[in-house]
Amino acid sequence: MKAAIMGYGTIGSGVVEVLETNRDMIAKRAGEAIEVKSVLDLREFEGDPIHDKIVHDYQVIAEDKEIQIVVETMGGVEPAFTFVKAMLEAGKHVVTSNKALVADKGAELIALAKQHNVNFLFEASVGGGIPIIRNLSHCLTADVVEEITGILNGTTNYMMTKMTLEGSEFDDVLKDAQEKGYAEKDPTADVEGHDACRKIAILTSLVCGQQVDFEDIHTEGITKISATDIKYAGAMGRAIKLLATSRKSGDTYSAMVAPCLLAPEHPLYSVNDVFNAVFVHGNVLGDAMFYGSGAGKLPTASAVVADMVECAQHSSEHIPLEWKANKLTLADYRETDNRFFVRTTAEETAIKEIFGEVTFVRAEGVTGEMGFLTEAMTEGAYEEKVARLGAVIQMIRVK
Amino acid sequence: MKAAIMGYGTIGSGVVEVLETNRDMIAKRAGEAIEVKSVLDLREFEGDPIHDKIVHDYQVIAEDKEIQIVVETMGGVEPAFTFVKAMLEAGKHVVTSNKALVADKGAELIALAKQHNVNFLFEASVGGGIPIIRNLSHCLTADVVEEITGILNGTTNYMMTKMTLEGSEFDDVLKDAQEKGYAEKDPTADVEGHDACRKIAILTSLVCGQQVDFEDIHTEGITKISATDIKYAGAMGRAIKLLATSRKSGDTYSAMVAPCLLAPEHPLYSVNDVFNAVFVHGNVLGDAMFYGSGAGKLPTASAVVADMVECAQHSSEHIPLEWKANKLTLADYRETDNRFFVRTTAEETAIKEIFGEVTFVRAEGVTGEMGFLTEAMTEGAYEEKVARLGAVIQMIRVK
Repeated sequence: MKAAIMGYGTIGSGVVEVLETNRDMIAKRAGEAIEVKSVLDLREFEGDPIHDKIVHDYQVIAEDKEIQIVVETMGGVEPAFTFVKAMLEAGKHVVTSNKALVADKGAELIALAKQHNVNFLFEASVGGGIPIIRNLSHCLTADVVEEITGILNGTTNYMMTKMTLEGSEFDDVLKDAQEKGYAEKDPTADVEGHDACRKIAILTSLVCGQQVDFEDIHTEGITKISATDIKYAGAMGRAIKLLATSRKSGDTYSAMVAPCLLAPEHPLYSVNDVFNAVFVHGNVLGDAMFYGSGAGKLPTASAVVADMVECAQHSSEHIPLEWKANKLTLADYRETDNRFFVRTTAEETAIKEIFGEVTFVRAEGVTGEMGFLTEAMTEGAYEEKVARLGAVIQMIRVK
Repeated sequence: MKAAIMGYGTIGSGVVEVLETNRDMIAKRAGEAIEVKSVLDLREFEGDPIHDKIVHDYQVIAEDKEIQIVVETMGGVEPAFTFVKAMLEAGKHVVTSNKALVADKGAELIALAKQHNVNFLFEASVGGGIPIIRNLSHCLTADVVEEITGILNGTTNYMMTKMTLEGSEFDDVLKDAQEKGYAEKDPTADVEGHDACRKIAILTSLVCGQQVDFEDIHTEGITKISATDIKYAGAMGRAIKLLATSRKSGDTYSAMVAPCLLAPEHPLYSVNDVFNAVFVHGNVLGDAMFYGSGAGKLPTASAVVADMVECAQHSSEHIPLEWKANKLTLADYRETDNRFFVRTTAEETAIKEIFGEVTFVRAEGVTGEMGFLTEAMTEGAYEEKVARLGAVIQMIRVK
């Protein structure tokens, strides 16, 4: 079976490496050998064994009748969308690692794949090597998934882990992450939560079977988390993690991306460094968690290649995937219940008067302020109370 | 689509409950409603809504042309094996939660299912609700799985967790587990590691594609773990867990079931109470972990019903599953490398003379003995050294 790769960057070259490393075993599982025939890239890669396979025009691949599977690892919505559409319309299976494309055009591309009796698979778009898409769509089929909570961004998890272990400030840790290649020069997509937001939008779409627009998800990043917050977290025996959450709420879901304080009992508490993990609660399964490398060349390529194997196994069959284009209106996040940890310069009496029963928290060496933990209340109720209290330095949600 | 259940105990009745609870969603995913037509049991269940469906002769189900899926939740090898064989030969899909049957007859029943173009699925036989079978056979298809380490027995994990938290002795914790219904009156299968042994045999068979006989797996239970061992573990900042391990070793695998000391960095360290988890290392994926309820009525039934949905989705197609009848000769466990924690009354000088570089460990309040941690060595080398040292109170492997 011949394949093509569009975009010979980190993931694209990882796919070539995985196909070579595990060639025989992949052939056995796929039913036949998978061979990369063409690679679409603007560059030439002179001297690289891939050089002979480089093409610069996606139409060459679309028109190549021999190529049955096309891998898209370019990233971004355009031109990836135009290229992927052309491949599906040409009757080729498409596998992608591109979360931006999937979050934006998933429903449309699945419908197009169905129309042409091929598959559009995107395991690598969420959680890197963790097979979370396949678990949600093909494994947990007896359950109504009532909650998904994920650590879906390796960069920010690395940063939060380092801040926790070393007590360092956000800016220093960001610099370290950039030096190590974990964070990009422009780290906005990671640290502002946009990346995690697209991923939880994809997972929520799969679980509800409708289009969830990532723009509708209330998203807060980790840029405001400080070493002082970490001290308070330590005093409570908790860890701060950037969580992407989706919860069933009546006939719809409520979704949010925000830093949260996790207790040691929570399965996500000990997920550190660049690892990702997805906690799932099913109405009959109960709690489950899927953990692994959320990024990186080979783990992500492993997920891409597993999708290629699935395409080979179902080369003349569309595997149904429930994700329709009709949009799901998410519940207003202001109606979601949460507990809140608040740092304030307000007086104890004022706090008690407005918030009622709270737990005060003091962190060693922190003066001129204090922290308190509220009982559960809606986001809306919290906003109203905090406007009355004023003098708030920081708020972090509590899981 | 009509189904039958053989054995209306905890899991069997759980399957009925899950099918009812999530009826509409299951029908949507399966492509049609799944209805239980017959239930095989020796009892009558007068007054129970299931009473009308009770049959006492498995031939009634085998001969019922309307029934396409049969669930086996009786447990034990016989008569389950005879019944399941009859159902497959009658062209019915079979789904089971019975680890004893699968470990013993898995290869044979898969071959029989293939011959009759039906499926024999057994997700619930390992890890309860955790979809570990599906992950190994259908998700991680791009990887060579180099290690599987599982906490596969909820009873013993509950007991080890309680011993760790409360410092109590094995016998007291066993009594508590029996009172809570987590341990059976005869707890041998759990506490001696036989249950975990069958499960790691199944997982290893799936990974290597050959028959792994559970009798070949070196198995040690938790009956010799004492409150003093827990004190030493605490002194080392580690936890003792009953681990079932399978590691690629050249062209074969080495497998073992034994209590092990885990460091806090290990993903299985914080898997507590009755939860199960399976750690997997793939050659390109790296580390991954799957966590969830390893037992219990509804989680296990959730896995059974997910298998039923898969049968409905592939009602006229055998899904290939690589598990041939030819036996895999496991590597001799004496050739496996491990680190060992040893409690002894021997002198420091004797220990150093025989074991070379070791780390001594002392636990608060424990006198007249001491502990030490060895460097990595083969099991065979350890046995030879310890025979020379003598005076050994306890040995626990270190992960």
